[in-house]
Amino acid sequence: MTENSSYIYGKNAVIEALESGNREFNRILISNTARSDEKIEKIKELAKKNGAIFQFVTKDKLNQLVPEARHQGVIAQVSPVKYEDIDDFIEKNAGNLTSVVILDGVEDSHNLGAIIRSAVCAGVKGIILPSRRGVLINSTVEKTSAGAVNNISVIKVNSLVNAVQKLKENNYWVIASDHHAEDNYYNINYTDMNFALIMGAEHSGISKSLLKLSDFKVKIPMLTNFNSLNVSNAAAIILFESVRQKLTANLKK
Amino acid sequence: MTENSSYIYGKNAVIEALESGNREFNRILISNTARSDEKIEKIKELAKKNGAIFQFVTKDKLNQLVPEARHQGVIAQVSPVKYEDIDDFIEKNAGNLTSVVILDGVEDSHNLGAIIRSAVCAGVKGIILPSRRGVLINSTVEKTSAGAVNNISVIKVNSLVNAVQKLKENNYWVIASDHHAEDNYYNINYTDMNFALIMGAEHSGISKSLLKLSDFKVKIPMLTNFNSLNVSNAAAIILFESVRQKLTANLKK
Repeated sequence: MTENSSYIYGKNAVIEALESGNREFNRILISNTARSDEKIEKIKELAKKNGAIFQFVTKDKLNQLVPEARHQGVIAQVSPVKYEDIDDFIEKNAGNLTSVVILDGVEDSHNLGAIIRSAVCAGVKGIILPSRRGVLINSTVEKTSAGAVNNISVIKVNSLVNAVQKLKENNYWVIASDHHAEDNYYNINYTDMNFALIMGAEHSGISKSLLKLSDFKVKIPMLTNFNSLNVSNAAAIILFESVRQKLTANLKK
Repeated sequence: MTENSSYIYGKNAVIEALESGNREFNRILISNTARSDEKIEKIKELAKKNGAIFQFVTKDKLNQLVPEARHQGVIAQVSPVKYEDIDDFIEKNAGNLTSVVILDGVEDSHNLGAIIRSAVCAGVKGIILPSRRGVLINSTVEKTSAGAVNNISVIKVNSLVNAVQKLKENNYWVIASDHHAEDNYYNINYTDMNFALIMGAEHSGISKSLLKLSDFKVKIPMLTNFNSLNVSNAAAIILFESVRQKLTANLKK
C-alpha cells in the first residue's frame, strides 16, 4: 500500500464508499471463489458507473493484502480519506443546526470506526481528530465504520484547543463527557443548538484545557458501581439522546 | 493455555477480576519493566489478599502469552468464566425487577466485550449466549469488557427459543431490537418490568423464531439514511434509555 492509496474491505464498506462518490477508486479486487450475491452484484454495477477497474483474484491474494481481517471476498484500493479544514467545515454548515464530535486522543481503531458510524446515524456532520495523538483513519477504521467515514466530514487539527475556540466563536456549545461531572447527559436540551461533543481517550479521559473550555460537563449515570463504559458506547448513548430529543420535540410541535 | 485456565490481561481487567472474587487465580505475571503505579500496587495488594502467586517476568514472555494485545504489563492466569444455568439465574433473581440481554449469534469478541460492559453499567443481571453460534467468553472478550464479565451472570444455552420461553413464563417481557420495527425503542416503559432485550448478529439480525416470540419489536430511529449501528452501540443506546427512564421515574416519585 502506497501513501497515496488506502484499502477498503468488506462488502458494505465498499458499497458505501462507491455510493458516496467521495473516493477515487483505483481497483476493486474480488475473490474468484466469492459466491455472487446481491451485494457483489451491486458492487459490480456501482463499479461500472464509477469507471473503476474490476479484477478477480485468488483468495490468497486478498488475504495477503488484508491479513486476518474479514474482507468478505472484496477489497477496494482507493484514494485516502480527504481530511477537511475546520474553517471550511464551519463555513459550509453555517446557518444549519450542526453537531460535531471531538475525540481527544481515542486510540483504538475499532472505537473510532464505531463512533463514526453512530455519529453518521445520529446526523452528526463532522468528526474532529488531533493530528498528533490517537488514531487517524486507517483500513480498520474504514471497515469498522461500515463505510460511514464517507458520509461525514473528517477534520484533522493540530490543536484541539484552537478548534474548540473556533467552534465557540461560531455559536457551537461545547459539551464534555466526563464521568466526574455532576450533570446527567439527558438533562441538556440538544434540540435548539449547534453542539460539539468531546469524548476523551480510552484511559486518560479529556484533557484539562479542553474541560476548562467546555460549556457543559455531563456524565452518564450508572445503575451499578461498575463505572466504565467503552468510549464508542458512551458516545452512542449521548448522541442518541440528542436524536431522541429532536424526534420527540418535533412530535410536540 | 490449557482448557482449564484462561488469561485476563490489562490492569483494569485484572483488578476487576480480583475484586469480584469469582475467579480462581493461578498466577499473576507482571512485566519486570512495568513502571509501578497506583493500579499495579492495587493488583499486588489484591493478589496478596487472594493468595495468588505473583511473578515478575520479561516483557517478551508476556508478549508470547498474549500476542499483539495490549496487556499493559499484567497478565493473570485464571480459572475460566463459569457459565450459569438459566433456571438458576431466574430463580436467583426472582422477586427483583431484573433485566437480561440475549445475543442471537454476535460474532465479534470486541462487540461481546463492549456489550457486557454496558450491560453491567446499566444494571443488567445476565447475558444469554447460544452455545453453538456466535462467540463465547475468550481473552479478548474479558479484556474488552474491562473485567465486567465478572460482574454479570453469563448463561450459555443450547436453544435461545427455549430460553426465551422460560423467561416469558417467569414474567419477563421480551424486547427485540430490529431495524424493520415500527415502534421506537424510547416509547417503551422499562421501569416497571422484568425485560429480556434481544440483539441480533452483526450481519443477519435476529432469527425469525425469536422475533415471533417477542412482546415488543423496537427500532432505533436515525437522523440520516445511513442505517447501520454497531451492535454494541445499539445495545448501549437501548439499555441506557432504560436507565434514563428508571432514574428520572425515581425523581418524579
